Amino acid sequence: AAAVEQTRALREAGDVGFFDLPDDRDAARQAMTYAQNLPPEIDTMVVLGIGGSSLGPHAAYSALAPSLDVLRPRSPGMPRRLLFPDNADPRSFEAVLDLCPLERTVFAVVTKSGGTAETAAQLLVVYKKLEDALGSAGVKRHIVAITDPSSGVLRRVADDLGIESFPIPPSVGGRFSVLSPVGLVPAAAAGLDVMGLLDGARRMRDRVIDGSAATNLRENPALLLASLLYLHDTERGRSQVVMMPYADQLYECADWFRQLWAESLGKERREGGHVENVGPTPIASRGATDQHSQLQLYAEGPADKVFVLFTTRERDSDLTMPASALTEHPEYSYLAGKRMGDLLDAELWGTFGSLTRRGRPAATITLERVDAEAIGEYFMLLEAATAFAGPLYGVNPYDQPGVEEAKKLAYAAFGREGYEEAAREGAPPEPDPRYVFR
Amino acid sequence: AAAVEQTRALREAGDVGFFDLPDDRDAARQAMTYAQNLPPEIDTMVVLGIGGSSLGPHAAYSALAPSLDVLRPRSPGMPRRLLFPDNADPRSFEAVLDLCPLERTVFAVVTKSGGTAETAAQLLVVYKKLEDALGSAGVKRHIVAITDPSSGVLRRVADDLGIESFPIPPSVGGRFSVLSPVGLVPAAAAGLDVMGLLDGARRMRDRVIDGSAATNLRENPALLLASLLYLHDTERGRSQVVMMPYADQLYECADWFRQLWAESLGKERREGGHVENVGPTPIASRGATDQHSQLQLYAEGPADKVFVLFTTRERDSDLTMPASALTEHPEYSYLAGKRMGDLLDAELWGTFGSLTRRGRPAATITLERVDAEAIGEYFMLLEAATAFAGPLYGVNPYDQPGVEEAKKLAYAAFGREGYEEAAREGAPPEPDPRYVFR
Repeated sequence: AAAVEQTRALREAGDVGFFDLPDDRDAARQAMTYAQNLPPEIDTMVVLGIGGSSLGPHAAYSALAPSLDVLRPRSPGMPRRLLFPDNADPRSFEAVLDLCPLERTVFAVVTKSGGTAETAAQLLVVYKKLEDALGSAGVKRHIVAITDPSSGVLRRVADDLGIESFPIPPSVGGRFSVLSPVGLVPAAAAGLDVMGLLDGARRMRDRVIDGSAATNLRENPALLLASLLYLHDTERGRSQVVMMPYADQLYECADWFRQLWAESLGKERREGGHVENVGPTPIASRGATDQHSQLQLYAEGPADKVFVLFTTRERDSDLTMPASALTEHPEYSYLAGKRMGDLLDAELWGTFGSLTRRGRPAATITLERVDAEAIGEYFMLLEAATAFAGPLYGVNPYDQPGVEEAKKLAYAAFGREGYEEAAREGAPPEPDPRYVFR
Repeated sequence: AAAVEQTRALREAGDVGFFDLPDDRDAARQAMTYAQNLPPEIDTMVVLGIGGSSLGPHAAYSALAPSLDVLRPRSPGMPRRLLFPDNADPRSFEAVLDLCPLERTVFAVVTKSGGTAETAAQLLVVYKKLEDALGSAGVKRHIVAITDPSSGVLRRVADDLGIESFPIPPSVGGRFSVLSPVGLVPAAAAGLDVMGLLDGARRMRDRVIDGSAATNLRENPALLLASLLYLHDTERGRSQVVMMPYADQLYECADWFRQLWAESLGKERREGGHVENVGPTPIASRGATDQHSQLQLYAEGPADKVFVLFTTRERDSDLTMPASALTEHPEYSYLAGKRMGDLLDAELWGTFGSLTRRGRPAATITLERVDAEAIGEYFMLLEAATAFAGPLYGVNPYDQPGVEEAKKLAYAAFGREGYEEAAREGAPPEPDPRYVFR
């Protein structure tokens, strides 16, 4: 209950904004208006972003757009496809640019601070290409910025150049931003049901933090989930949380959770002069695929994991294994006339049974069907669980101080001005030749 | 040294065949001949396989084919694209079939036993479609089987129907099969350098098990890697191995390693009446992307991980961040005129420095460039390390007894004949309503 109360206090103080995103219908309407007004020849949105700026919209798109949507040939009137080159890899980014003609592409630049190095690198390449090919009108037509409403370099750039932009509320951190324009603008461009996302999230929000029952462990799924995962970690040594969707379209939702849980809870906790390193390790695993890769370890390896099997009751496809000459073989006959989705369900059940029989704790999250409301509920459920797990672990789930040093050292190695001292300090030691192989 | 000697003995007894795959030039030539003789209108190979039957060829294809190859429009004479629907998900499998017209597609069915449920399900759907549309000639033209040379249902089916087939040597297990036809046939279809893969693997093989220096820890990179990872796990409690490529094209190589390490070493070890659950947890992580997702946990969370940063000295792209109006802003100016690949290298260096300064052990694997020989070396290095780690952990790295129960329970849940007893035994307990939310 204290975890809920603490979180409520942060929300009321205006420090933690994600709970209130589902109420911002205007943001959703603006995203939809923007998408409707995009020129019809634009059939692709490339999201320039990394981490929370990419994982959230990617999760929503994978879950809700047609399967393998990026491979489908585009025709007029179709919703746009989305691409997420969430890295500063020159080879794959060049391929994205080769495959997406400028005239048919809009680039959504997503960075709250504006300065994220990987995103800035992508933006610089795209900006120059657009300006050279299409001039400043082309820049305005083919770039949209999603960033802080008032500060940061991308905000200044967007205002200076008249680039359309959407705000990320200052009280919403990157990994909690999927229900802000970070997620909504790409979702709208892909023709997804953005209001449905917000509706589902709001319903879950009302349940897990707003209602009077929210402080009751038995009435609050987010609180119970956070508490059980926390106790399994700290009391039973089960520090790894395996999120295992049994539907390909839900895999990126597990990857989204992987950031949320890791970056929020993996922290150095200082009490008195004492430093403790805490936090669970989330793992995204694909069912049934990983039964042929990780299940051996999950079943027989150390008892250091908790499992969350994530699935859907209804599947969009009734694809059936037909009877044929092949099903006359006894090894195949049991499949004849059955639905492939039922096989996948049976596999989930086999894994669940095998794990729990061995005393390995497993939970299931089952959507009635994969639609925008259910995905909105899922996002809010896990964001709230993360918010509550922060106080349980005694850490601030909203910061990420541990990544600063690596950034500084990277700037130093890259020769960025102002980082000369970090370059001197951070000069790598010569590797011990006994451990070097060529 | 004993780990090497034990592995040598298994190899000499003919029980462990993967070390000898690089010598089988005939297998490579047959794969190339097959690929050359494929009808020119076939522009896509869909690999029907799961686990080791998909991860190996997928890793080779991602590493060596052009970036985002599946998205590139096909034209005559182009190498074929590969798709890996490695799951029994009806929604995504239906999408694969919609996107790949039968006349332009060949289906490579890869399963050693022939009976793998997910692969069988895919095959049954494809077989009936081909037979209905193109008759038995179509089946022969559009299916190729990669399976045991003499036993199993797929072997019988291929022989009965006159489907072209390639053998998986009986002494080569699925997760060690990438250099067998499992990897070579798809690689050849995609126009990759299959001989180069074998050449690189052979060079590494000669170094890590054949030479007299192979029993010397200081001369054998596979043995040193296995030993260090084993000691970090068992002596220091660092049970998680994070394989983190800093090149998008290498990500699937990390995912391949994830199966290899987990399924080989995650085992129940029985000594006397005593049962112990052992094995490290491999994690695939994407650099620099996961710096914005996992690095906070890696840097400040519990000291339970070892890091292997995997990269390449040369990158295929010199993509540069150009000077423009944007780089007049100080937050962007440091990027102007620099190569994106150098940024990625600097990020690796920042992460490496930040982790090692905190006493978190990290190693790097650096390819000179990503070519077939280097990838062949990588495969063999990690296969050999896995083989050596088995005796260190005191487990058999070549079996996977822990997945059988889940299979049995899945068959039972699916209503397969002969599993009635498992169905009764495995009937799930009613969930405790205190833990159920709707």
